[in-house]
Amino acid sequence: MRSVEWSNGRVRLIDQRKLPYAVSHVEYDDYRSVANAITERIVVGAGAIGATAAYGIALAATQSAAMDIGSLLDFIDIAAVILRKADPNTPHLANCVDRMVRYARDDAHRDAREIRSSLLAEAHKIAESDIAANKRLGKYGASLIRSGDTVLVHGSSGALDSVDFGVMLGVIRTVHGSGKRISVLVTESRPNLSGALRTAWELHEEHIPFTLIADAAAGHFIRRGEVSILIIGAAQIASNGDTAAAIGTYTLGVLARESRVPFYVVAPLAAVDVNALSGDQLPLMDRPLDEMHTPYGVNLYPNHYPMRNPILDVTPQRYLAGIITEAGVIAPPFRENLASAVTRFTRST
Amino acid sequence: MRSVEWSNGRVRLIDQRKLPYAVSHVEYDDYRSVANAITERIVVGAGAIGATAAYGIALAATQSAAMDIGSLLDFIDIAAVILRKADPNTPHLANCVDRMVRYARDDAHRDAREIRSSLLAEAHKIAESDIAANKRLGKYGASLIRSGDTVLVHGSSGALDSVDFGVMLGVIRTVHGSGKRISVLVTESRPNLSGALRTAWELHEEHIPFTLIADAAAGHFIRRGEVSILIIGAAQIASNGDTAAAIGTYTLGVLARESRVPFYVVAPLAAVDVNALSGDQLPLMDRPLDEMHTPYGVNLYPNHYPMRNPILDVTPQRYLAGIITEAGVIAPPFRENLASAVTRFTRST
Repeated sequence: MRSVEWSNGRVRLIDQRKLPYAVSHVEYDDYRSVANAITERIVVGAGAIGATAAYGIALAATQSAAMDIGSLLDFIDIAAVILRKADPNTPHLANCVDRMVRYARDDAHRDAREIRSSLLAEAHKIAESDIAANKRLGKYGASLIRSGDTVLVHGSSGALDSVDFGVMLGVIRTVHGSGKRISVLVTESRPNLSGALRTAWELHEEHIPFTLIADAAAGHFIRRGEVSILIIGAAQIASNGDTAAAIGTYTLGVLARESRVPFYVVAPLAAVDVNALSGDQLPLMDRPLDEMHTPYGVNLYPNHYPMRNPILDVTPQRYLAGIITEAGVIAPPFRENLASAVTRFTRST
Repeated sequence: MRSVEWSNGRVRLIDQRKLPYAVSHVEYDDYRSVANAITERIVVGAGAIGATAAYGIALAATQSAAMDIGSLLDFIDIAAVILRKADPNTPHLANCVDRMVRYARDDAHRDAREIRSSLLAEAHKIAESDIAANKRLGKYGASLIRSGDTVLVHGSSGALDSVDFGVMLGVIRTVHGSGKRISVLVTESRPNLSGALRTAWELHEEHIPFTLIADAAAGHFIRRGEVSILIIGAAQIASNGDTAAAIGTYTLGVLARESRVPFYVVAPLAAVDVNALSGDQLPLMDRPLDEMHTPYGVNLYPNHYPMRNPILDVTPQRYLAGIITEAGVIAPPFRENLASAVTRFTRST
């Protein structure tokens, strides 16, 4: 279920607008079309968007076959500007693009051809390290789940939202693959219905037992003891552990603590913003109102009512039992433990 | 905006399946069609359903013009059985039907014609007392709200859900009518979207400022201090104050307490089940799954996924600041204070 790949000199994506009704792919031979695919949300999720943008830079390099090194580097700079603009709300995109540009400029490349091939190799490295991180964090997360558990998940953070394997669903895939018998309670995750349309689809494809519920029903099941553990993908994590995630995550954190059910967020360390001291400094985001009243073209109610459509909220770190990452399950105190994990992993990769 | 009335010998209802896109009425001259309208949810909400069933009995009496008293009373008994079955999950329906049957049998009626006219008068009394209760509790509820407040409401409990004026929206109408400047935050209230389709529609019709949000977004706004008070209609209240209400109400109670925002439920005393010692004894309800994946015929996601669709949850009484009723705002300790209010009001009516 690879959502992003390089295929015969093109960038190939699962067309996520067609899911869950059809699995089809789109291919691009122009970096501007790749940028457009990100903006149009044909690809979503930080991991997938970052790798797609990196392949976009590699693609830009191949589009400039006749150029000398200087012109090629200028062309890559332009592509980088356009790709960064494709989704200004995903810092991981900018980080991946920056890494590609730095790599193009810094290396002691002998000629344009060498730059092109080494940029593609670097994009592959970004994609592979995303998958490797997911597999590592999947194992750490799986260690928290016992056979017989019901895991509540929210939003989407699966293979579709990363290059492959998934973050939140990477944990679920790992524990299911290990032979533990689990079931998953999946919230619809309004407004974008990412739980119903993406998470449920991946679980269904993998034959992992799940039950879909309305967001408003989660508290009912948690209170009645029908949830063993909550594991939710994070969009961004401040240096103190405060976490921005799919709207409704804060609510689930409060509900979990009220019923003494452990609540974990999960993310690659790339999601940690070491410059954000607390959740107040994490960027939140509202999406257009038509995605609320008419998700995926299906109209639910009158479009002229006043509405607000935030799609991220902040869960203060005190609600978290831990943060599942590729460096292990980070426990409180989060500021110290996150900083040490980030330092350790930034040095080693 | 009268949702239930007697009109030229017929029972007349707002056809709620057409809202919010069209306001149309349906009229019935057969009590079996009235029972069917209740089952088909053309009329919803305990108050509206109770009055509709009472008018259904009055209608049955007019359908038996040629009968003697004995046959008429038998005919009314049959109608009562059929009307009670129309919605076994609304105790208020059974109570209203029982009251009508008792009235037909107990009174020292001289002839069938007198029974018919006095049954219609009794149905009118049930409808009018519903409206009167709403206006009384509306005033008590309004006293809790200050000018400038933002009131968060959930589910639907408006004029459409009662005979007229509304319970939850009765409070909002009263405070708005009193000249206080308020705004209302309305949750969509999945699965049935009752907030988006019914509550928002009534507020829009009355020009009361409101903003619609996803259920999952409520916690975000409460945490950020954007909600002054929560007022939510109750379906049933146990004798200790535990409250069954639209799914998601428990969650809002927890969120409100977490942010020290006052949380009230509102209901006529008819919703108090004095025989239920606690919330464990209140009947909950699941609705068909098609109302979840395809609300009002609009398909949201694949219908073959495993789902659960509870539409009520229980909020333990410790989360409540008070219970707004036509006997005043009941404060803790709820068991004592509810019992005394019920006794007082049952005696007086």
